[in-house]
Amino acid sequence: MVGKSQIKFIKSLQQKKYRNQHRMFVVEGIKTVQELLDSSFEPHKVYAIAEGTITTDQIDIELISEPDLLRMSSLKNPNKVLGVFKFPEIKTIKDQGWILALDDVRDPGNLGTIIRLCDWFGIKQLVCSENTVDCYNPKVLQATMGSITRVDIVYTDLIQFIKASSLPVYGTFMDGADVHTEKMPEKGILVMGNEANGISKAIENLVDQKISIPQFGSRETESLNVATATAIFLNEIRRVGK
Amino acid sequence: MVGKSQIKFIKSLQQKKYRNQHRMFVVEGIKTVQELLDSSFEPHKVYAIAEGTITTDQIDIELISEPDLLRMSSLKNPNKVLGVFKFPEIKTIKDQGWILALDDVRDPGNLGTIIRLCDWFGIKQLVCSENTVDCYNPKVLQATMGSITRVDIVYTDLIQFIKASSLPVYGTFMDGADVHTEKMPEKGILVMGNEANGISKAIENLVDQKISIPQFGSRETESLNVATATAIFLNEIRRVGK
Repeated sequence: MVGKSQIKFIKSLQQKKYRNQHRMFVVEGIKTVQELLDSSFEPHKVYAIAEGTITTDQIDIELISEPDLLRMSSLKNPNKVLGVFKFPEIKTIKDQGWILALDDVRDPGNLGTIIRLCDWFGIKQLVCSENTVDCYNPKVLQATMGSITRVDIVYTDLIQFIKASSLPVYGTFMDGADVHTEKMPEKGILVMGNEANGISKAIENLVDQKISIPQFGSRETESLNVATATAIFLNEIRRVGK
Repeated sequence: MVGKSQIKFIKSLQQKKYRNQHRMFVVEGIKTVQELLDSSFEPHKVYAIAEGTITTDQIDIELISEPDLLRMSSLKNPNKVLGVFKFPEIKTIKDQGWILALDDVRDPGNLGTIIRLCDWFGIKQLVCSENTVDCYNPKVLQATMGSITRVDIVYTDLIQFIKASSLPVYGTFMDGADVHTEKMPEKGILVMGNEANGISKAIENLVDQKISIPQFGSRETESLNVATATAIFLNEIRRVGK
């Protein structure tokens, strides 16, 4: 039986405020918890409803009842295992390879999808503005499918970060140069903007090259969603020289 | 004041069964309702909470109270306008240009995003297997943002459809040829599979060319989500000759 205070603690980690206070976050489901255990993330507690659902020699797994799991879970149908992990050490972003920078992406599903895309395309560094949704938000973690273990994510003042970097800065704008014909360098910073407002004026002023995905349909069409646009731009970046 | 039976009728259209029975569907929000009114879709009823929110000479707009709108809406925060539209006439798919075919895509958000992508990339014909989520599902309509007016969508037996077509059939598989180097023709059918199981065996047997998006990250990475993968493939198709 899990104590009330423990359940309260784990539930509190659904909120960013308490995650930042304790520097811990919660991950659910056999596959994702196992991926985190197999990565450099450090576990604080791992709960499972049966033995053998998960394997690790890093920590003792605490067996709990299904009702207790349901009580600490943020999901309607929890998946057998729940882990509490410590925040990784804050990484320093290096001026190497392509870096993806997010200027206030707010939707957890979009951020989760974007982290998964970084993992697929081998983008190792993701820099988020301070108002971008927290990557340890349970909905983000659910959408990343363990990719978070393979991408270094840093929250920082994006303006200062870009000013301090020597890499060329690419930003996505409706009136940018056609990404199909624009020659992309081997390294740089790609900035993607907020769902409703795109890239902010302050960041726009720091962009060296505006790029866009050409439109083949009617003019009335809404711009692409930030996650699908990121998919296309990362694919284009990796296409270089082919 | 809107009668109870009218509210009951509109609520019933949240279910596929009743949509198919009445051959009508519901759209919400000023922008999307206006786009449908400006398209070839035929309105059955349009409700608004104030005059001037929407303009059309096709039909009289019925002014209703906010509580009545809330009662008929599927949204927590309805957006001023609700329209009931008739199903369009069933289209015949022609063997021209690129056709996107979906083999049991189940998630409404994915289908909505895919319709929006078709619109952006000028894919005019979308063929869905009978088990693909209904395109008049409220969650799909919310995600399409009006794009549904510019893409012809047909639900049919996908196996029969592919067999009857003379177009080359491209299917997406993890072990397919690299889409970056594969030369894509000017027309064809692109098949995208189910979220969990990919393309079914029966359809796989009809595929002329398997293609894939090359992976640049670690091998452990989950495959891309069907909507982001569709974004990349449609972009690649339109890149031909550039």
